[in-house]
Amino acid sequence: MAEAGPFVKEITPPDQDYSQWYQDVVRKADLADYGPVAGFMVMKPAGYALWENIQAGLDRRFKATGHVNAYFPLLIPESLLMQEAAHVAGFTPEVAWVTQGGQEQLSERLAIRPTSEVMVGAMYAKWVQSYRDLPLLINQWNNVVRWEKVTRPFLRGKEFLWQEGHTAHSSAEEAMAETLRMLEVYREFLETELAMPTRKGQKSDSEKFAGAELTYSVEAMMGDRRALQAGTSHYFGTRFATAYGIRFLDRDGVEKHAFTTSWGMSTRVIGALIMVHGDGRGLVLPPRLAPIQAVIVPIGANASPEVLGAAQRLHGELSETLRVHLDQRPEYTPGWKFNEWEMRGVPLRLELGPRDMAAGQVVVVRRDTGEKRPLPLAGLAGQLGELLEAVQADMLSRAEERLRQHTHAASDYGEARQILTDRLGWVEAGWCGSVACEDQVKEETGATLRNLPLDQPAPALCLVCGQPARHMALWGRAY
Amino acid sequence: MAEAGPFVKEITPPDQDYSQWYQDVVRKADLADYGPVAGFMVMKPAGYALWENIQAGLDRRFKATGHVNAYFPLLIPESLLMQEAAHVAGFTPEVAWVTQGGQEQLSERLAIRPTSEVMVGAMYAKWVQSYRDLPLLINQWNNVVRWEKVTRPFLRGKEFLWQEGHTAHSSAEEAMAETLRMLEVYREFLETELAMPTRKGQKSDSEKFAGAELTYSVEAMMGDRRALQAGTSHYFGTRFATAYGIRFLDRDGVEKHAFTTSWGMSTRVIGALIMVHGDGRGLVLPPRLAPIQAVIVPIGANASPEVLGAAQRLHGELSETLRVHLDQRPEYTPGWKFNEWEMRGVPLRLELGPRDMAAGQVVVVRRDTGEKRPLPLAGLAGQLGELLEAVQADMLSRAEERLRQHTHAASDYGEARQILTDRLGWVEAGWCGSVACEDQVKEETGATLRNLPLDQPAPALCLVCGQPARHMALWGRAY
Repeated sequence: MAEAGPFVKEITPPDQDYSQWYQDVVRKADLADYGPVAGFMVMKPAGYALWENIQAGLDRRFKATGHVNAYFPLLIPESLLMQEAAHVAGFTPEVAWVTQGGQEQLSERLAIRPTSEVMVGAMYAKWVQSYRDLPLLINQWNNVVRWEKVTRPFLRGKEFLWQEGHTAHSSAEEAMAETLRMLEVYREFLETELAMPTRKGQKSDSEKFAGAELTYSVEAMMGDRRALQAGTSHYFGTRFATAYGIRFLDRDGVEKHAFTTSWGMSTRVIGALIMVHGDGRGLVLPPRLAPIQAVIVPIGANASPEVLGAAQRLHGELSETLRVHLDQRPEYTPGWKFNEWEMRGVPLRLELGPRDMAAGQVVVVRRDTGEKRPLPLAGLAGQLGELLEAVQADMLSRAEERLRQHTHAASDYGEARQILTDRLGWVEAGWCGSVACEDQVKEETGATLRNLPLDQPAPALCLVCGQPARHMALWGRAY
Repeated sequence: MAEAGPFVKEITPPDQDYSQWYQDVVRKADLADYGPVAGFMVMKPAGYALWENIQAGLDRRFKATGHVNAYFPLLIPESLLMQEAAHVAGFTPEVAWVTQGGQEQLSERLAIRPTSEVMVGAMYAKWVQSYRDLPLLINQWNNVVRWEKVTRPFLRGKEFLWQEGHTAHSSAEEAMAETLRMLEVYREFLETELAMPTRKGQKSDSEKFAGAELTYSVEAMMGDRRALQAGTSHYFGTRFATAYGIRFLDRDGVEKHAFTTSWGMSTRVIGALIMVHGDGRGLVLPPRLAPIQAVIVPIGANASPEVLGAAQRLHGELSETLRVHLDQRPEYTPGWKFNEWEMRGVPLRLELGPRDMAAGQVVVVRRDTGEKRPLPLAGLAGQLGELLEAVQADMLSRAEERLRQHTHAASDYGEARQILTDRLGWVEAGWCGSVACEDQVKEETGATLRNLPLDQPAPALCLVCGQPARHMALWGRAY
């Protein structure tokens, strides 16, 4: 019979080597594995189940805001990709090229989509003729390939899964409203489902998406206080419509270019989920997203038929309202199972042994706090439902607290440097808008301008140069 | 205001040119469009919504039979692909090759997956050590690329969407049971959700999947009586396990090769759906699969505020139990809307005008039969629910009737030839098992051996050569 001890010891403590801790959690919680081509990851069932729940939560929100799904082809002709200059410059260095199809050498190279603005743009140009054809509000769930040099599971890979929304509108105002609406959908989704607070804001010109007029992001703070861009929403104005010919006859009889947007969230958020909530014992999953919300572990080295029977009845009852799993594997000890399910981040563990049965109770252990308490079997489903809501709320509170506690309004540039480098916090302060000041912070601290928080007035002065500030800006070291 | 007339006339009558009729329906029902690379299709929202419902129905069944989802990489190293000889021979001619990643010329070509047996096999070899690791029951939803020469929307494309299940087992019996279980899942799914009857059977050696020991299929009959292979399930024995090293230490302490299976269903079934149920007026969708089950069309060239208000209230009420859409576009006439929604295959149309309001009723029109009748507004949701069930059942009955009526037990080969060529029916008769007889039928009639129906005893003699028969066999011309 397997022993309890060695399991957890294989995780590197996060305060010793955060990067190694992350990789240990990915591996030990069985979320992903390395594929045969370097930089390509296999999402194992435990990892993919997280993505399925993310998909369900986002897709519901996309549809509630009037969007429909479609599917656009994987391969983009080189000539088509080359029509929008800024987009080309941004993406060409990391495109994978198909040069042979079957026995045939292709006359034109085909790019595996790194993103689909140009493919969608070419199709929208066919589909849009009149103002009556607008808005087009389409999302797609797919895979994209970007030939990244340094890769890490979930965070950066040569292939990843995501959704990319692409919309076309008859006015700038409507397209801008869409851009911000979807940014808010991301913020609300991450907060509600992943217990992940973020800061919404506009990207600086040097950080925006290749081809966008404006890019907005939601930025989350990881356990090591680095920032992670968890979702982006882009306003293109008429740039892509001009490059790809998306024109419509407006109500006033004048032919105009459409205004387009795009917005995306990827499997990268699973990396963020790990780093926002994980701890020294492994993954910690928020109940709303957890594929298994509670695991039942029968107690006693050789769980008696009575205990197993009671556990099975309990499993049946709870399954009606919760996502619950009964671990009745005979070849593992309860202690080994405790460690494994902690590692896998299951929010609640229910221990049921002979003494609990006699007392008409189960012992319930919270994954997030380790808190342990008996709960009566009578009315248990309701109690657990409330407890899961409390866990979800507490996880969000703690993540919010971390974000607040480590975001500083630096009084001068010296203090800001110290916060960004020594204390690894975020700095929120004025920025004059110059690339020079942005670059200086990056060179001297390694921190980047994460975004320009929405709805916050600009302070008086730029943190870096002391000239009048044009924006409030958020700096931090980032993934 | 647009006129009613021209719309439907644009569909070629199916008995005039079935192939053109099919393409007209795909285009006019707005299911798909051609992408910028020949052979690559865009699935438009109306087409993709069908796939979403197919995915939901299949995924639920996969999970109910113990499977979980995962995601394996898109690109397969050439050397890995080459390890299973029959598989290589079957797929290499239609593989798309990536030769450049970013600025880097790759040292080894990478295949875009035409299917994932080898990728999954390589990973399973890492994941399986002990009998305790088995069975592995994993499915994935993804895109694949096959460089087909002749393509048609949904039916055959250079890229398509599908699911591919891959399982590994500790015994041949268990793997065989899995192969047949998933075949039955396909059959039941198609019958229940798509109102599409099929015939289950084993493929002949010349028609089986490259690398499989046994392939099984479900075959559906289209409106032109051609067969379409709607789903396949493969038993690999230990072939892939041997090629890719999937070995486990069994209970008896002996290291053995695992037994594997795979099974897949693709967006091709949308083509089948069109051809099983469609008619001269366009698409006909079975209610269980239809994204919109009933459309409300307010009547009166300029629908009055009273009628519109009543239609909106009706929409609100019905939305609680049905997938219902209210078409309140002012720029189209009711007649134009009738044609459009017929074209798009919506199962029920609800007409609501001033006279209906006065009579406390709506006029309900079935898409499948054209039958028109008033139904009282009181208790309408329940009535429509029953009517939708009746439509679903009737659509299945008619499709079953067609399949039965056009499947013939030919008394001799001459009659069989005549059935297969002139009457375009299917023939069910004995087969000796020889490739010669199989080839002869193909050459002389264009029909292929669809499958060897399960659970049917072999007749006495082979239809073709008159030698003793080894199997019952089903022949038909196929897509």
